[in-house]
Amino acid sequence: MQKTAILGIGQTPISEHWDKSLREIAGEAAFAALQDAGMEKVDALYVGNMLSPLLNGQNQLGTFLSDWIGLWRQEAVKVEAACGSGAAAFRAALMAVAAGEIESALVVGVEKMSDKTSHDITASLATAADADYEVEQGISFVGLNALVMQRYMHEFGWKHADFAQFSINAHANAMHNPFARLHERITPEKFEKSSMVATPINLLDASPIGDGAAAAVIVPANKVVSLKSRPRIIVAASASNTDTIAVHSRKDPLFLSAAYASAQRCYEMAGVKPQDLDVFEVHDAFTIMTALSLEACGFAERGKGVQLGLDNVISPKGRIPICTRGGLKARGHPVGATGMYQITEVVQQLRGECGETQVDSADIGMAQNIGGSGATVVTHILKVD
Amino acid sequence: MQKTAILGIGQTPISEHWDKSLREIAGEAAFAALQDAGMEKVDALYVGNMLSPLLNGQNQLGTFLSDWIGLWRQEAVKVEAACGSGAAAFRAALMAVAAGEIESALVVGVEKMSDKTSHDITASLATAADADYEVEQGISFVGLNALVMQRYMHEFGWKHADFAQFSINAHANAMHNPFARLHERITPEKFEKSSMVATPINLLDASPIGDGAAAAVIVPANKVVSLKSRPRIIVAASASNTDTIAVHSRKDPLFLSAAYASAQRCYEMAGVKPQDLDVFEVHDAFTIMTALSLEACGFAERGKGVQLGLDNVISPKGRIPICTRGGLKARGHPVGATGMYQITEVVQQLRGECGETQVDSADIGMAQNIGGSGATVVTHILKVD
Repeated sequence: MQKTAILGIGQTPISEHWDKSLREIAGEAAFAALQDAGMEKVDALYVGNMLSPLLNGQNQLGTFLSDWIGLWRQEAVKVEAACGSGAAAFRAALMAVAAGEIESALVVGVEKMSDKTSHDITASLATAADADYEVEQGISFVGLNALVMQRYMHEFGWKHADFAQFSINAHANAMHNPFARLHERITPEKFEKSSMVATPINLLDASPIGDGAAAAVIVPANKVVSLKSRPRIIVAASASNTDTIAVHSRKDPLFLSAAYASAQRCYEMAGVKPQDLDVFEVHDAFTIMTALSLEACGFAERGKGVQLGLDNVISPKGRIPICTRGGLKARGHPVGATGMYQITEVVQQLRGECGETQVDSADIGMAQNIGGSGATVVTHILKVD
Repeated sequence: MQKTAILGIGQTPISEHWDKSLREIAGEAAFAALQDAGMEKVDALYVGNMLSPLLNGQNQLGTFLSDWIGLWRQEAVKVEAACGSGAAAFRAALMAVAAGEIESALVVGVEKMSDKTSHDITASLATAADADYEVEQGISFVGLNALVMQRYMHEFGWKHADFAQFSINAHANAMHNPFARLHERITPEKFEKSSMVATPINLLDASPIGDGAAAAVIVPANKVVSLKSRPRIIVAASASNTDTIAVHSRKDPLFLSAAYASAQRCYEMAGVKPQDLDVFEVHDAFTIMTALSLEACGFAERGKGVQLGLDNVISPKGRIPICTRGGLKARGHPVGATGMYQITEVVQQLRGECGETQVDSADIGMAQNIGGSGATVVTHILKVD
């Protein structure tokens, strides 16, 4: 497999973009990434998106966007894996460049959610769960995660307040990210008093949706020169794995087996251990997912993930910085775009572009994107080379 | 890029499968392909599907199906390119095997359309067109194709009856395909008297939708031994290209530029010319698309594609056999599955398994899958090796 590098990145602020259409926000991120890469054309466009058929009445988003962006007569395709769509599209693009079939790919993760009612959006998000055996029972997607969190608290004896630091850290970091959805510091008191969504998940356990797009340009590594002002950033590892789609089918619903398997494969490919990572962009859709992801990826023992928040080793100055740009919690979670935001943010860290939340000498970073309740997990390790 | 081979194929009959769910028909094709390949497990599952979010309330179809099929803890992902989803998923799987990242992939194209009303289905199919600039005007997908056919007849002087043979050939071939949706011979008289759908497209110009799934197993070519009883079938070429999403944006709406570009690239990669092809599974969603595809792929000059039907060189004994198992017209068009039916059928021809519609000494075949009105085109050439 040919070694690949990320040459350019781009993103839009995550917000309710009432004045912009799906194609406009996707174009904004795409053009920013192409400009950052110093390129006008690429061989193929890969789009990560989950909800455009349901919320925007649009399928065939690859060609829809290649047409808009002006990548005429190029290959284009869409990849979907629920909230893991962004990284899944990145991985598909990576394969094509690694195979030598194409010499450059633009990957755009995009979601435009503001045009519909909350009811429509909740129903759409539930399509990530099992339509026949979960959704049919009337449960929402946050409801499923609430059951998992309830069980976790019961089994390991944690209180709800113990999860606060995951949310506080994310909000604190987002203060310094101009692209973030929320710019609001929160306190432990505020965390505990926030409105309940689905017991025990309250509003500050949950990530906000939004409209947004993030993009990256992938090329063969040998086409990129490493400069002091702009280091060469390679994709050191890529892996994807799955669990059962329904949470109730799992022997252990408190173990994210696909997160574990894809992270392990990445550690092997990149020749690193968890403690070698300088930054980890985790899929913190809910605080419970942060705890479970940290455990599955080797940063804490089973049932002990919450302790990393309590010890606050997750801040940019900590042992394992997470959500350094705000995470899903405060940067925001435009579902099909999220995986590409994570990759974009790891690149920013490795380039040293993160200002107040910059991790010191960040050379190795991991981004992990999750579709469904841990059903599809796509993990990447990026490295300064 | 590593050379790849197709080791196994499987398919379900195309029908209104009221008694089976999406996962059941996908599983049927998947198990058939695995059995045909003599394998129980593969490294990854690629799913081609267009409409499951809209018609089945289900996203994340990769993991949804890997779970059902029992490919636990493997990679799985869905690829979507409207009616071109099947071949787009095949191509994505091909890249991963060709890159050496995985050693085997199962590709399943599936669509389950019977559960909804015709109104829902018509609206869903229109998501292949441009939601903002085409669908917003109230036009359906067949309406768009009708405008193209009208223009073609006007510009080149053909009558509607001149298109009859495309439909007659497809129906005649489907008589011998147990998996086909329609088993009914038609005549030129019946073709002309059929109910109008959108002038000038009548019911016998248009392909019927349906429920169905088709699958294939891809492995590195060096893992397959060529036997006399079962020749080794390699993927000699793969290419994908796009046009504008809206038909009205094209300088020439009667030229399928993406079909031309992807076919040309395939001819180059495989080192063949159009006349070297023994069989061509064309995307005959409407008779007009057959004419335009034959022209774009080098079998007729501009405006002359219809003549190939009139001369009947398209039958299994003709110069360029098309729709040898019934095509979209009579085998049926379960949209996201169609591309995988085409690939499966070319494999059947190259193996000599087509009985009454077997093409003599078929060694090289092409399958071309189209998303939207020529917007995304994915072409493959398979070869006995």
